[in-house]
Amino acid sequence: MARYFEDVEVGEMYELDGRYEITEDEITEFAEKYDPQPFHLDQEAAEESIFGSLAASGWHTASACMRLFVDEFLDAETSMGARGIDNLRWKQPVYPGDEIRIEVEIVDKRPSESRPGMGHIKTRLRGYNQDDEEVIEWTALGMTRRRNPDA
Amino acid sequence: MARYFEDVEVGEMYELDGRYEITEDEITEFAEKYDPQPFHLDQEAAEESIFGSLAASGWHTASACMRLFVDEFLDAETSMGARGIDNLRWKQPVYPGDEIRIEVEIVDKRPSESRPGMGHIKTRLRGYNQDDEEVIEWTALGMTRRRNPDA
Repeated sequence: MARYFEDVEVGEMYELDGRYEITEDEITEFAEKYDPQPFHLDQEAAEESIFGSLAASGWHTASACMRLFVDEFLDAETSMGARGIDNLRWKQPVYPGDEIRIEVEIVDKRPSESRPGMGHIKTRLRGYNQDDEEVIEWTALGMTRRRNPDA
Repeated sequence: MARYFEDVEVGEMYELDGRYEITEDEITEFAEKYDPQPFHLDQEAAEESIFGSLAASGWHTASACMRLFVDEFLDAETSMGARGIDNLRWKQPVYPGDEIRIEVEIVDKRPSESRPGMGHIKTRLRGYNQDDEEVIEWTALGMTRRRNPDA
């Protein structure tokens, strides 16, 4: 069922079932394209880095969490995109074979002043690895369709 | 020449030469993998969206800017990664064929308290399209090697 602006309440918390496995191949593929720093590409360089071992680009971890967010939480009928992200933090490295899951909390909502059919929903997303260590968090400024623009 | 913590000053601004063209193929490839929302995948759905036409995932735009940042500004010898990103904003949609460039401003720096060989450098990155419209901005909390840890 489509989730409209009216269908979420501030304070709600969603623990989502999806998992995203970050493989070594995908780590190097993403890094070669978008973040070719040695600690994302080369095991030896990574061992000498503060990560201690080959680690995913932070943008790759974010993208994997976005995939889970789209699959598990956003709705094709009602999502209108996002204006931005606040307080993105990479809290632990993500290593080959790590399996990521996310939790989503509704932290604020308000109707748009300029677009009657739209509402702003602020969500805090937290990503965890298979050991329940938090690896990433952010607060997204999302835009969502309203069911009753005139209400 | 490697750029160490000591080699940048707060207030410096770098207009970088690199360009990243965002093609339609890459928009759909990235979106299929990481952000499969209709307005990133389907021209018709995108026309009905607030973007008005097929648009890149915001995470894709960020990743393209990261590539420019790595190629044009970061240094393999001295970059130690980043703790996070503040105030990421997607200011304009990025469309197929758009050519992105970036500017980088040093907004803060301080030695690490816990790691003598490291310093924190806060950089504001702004991405522009070929019409000089700002499409993205963020503030990165980067970590950089110090040349003189004991200075």
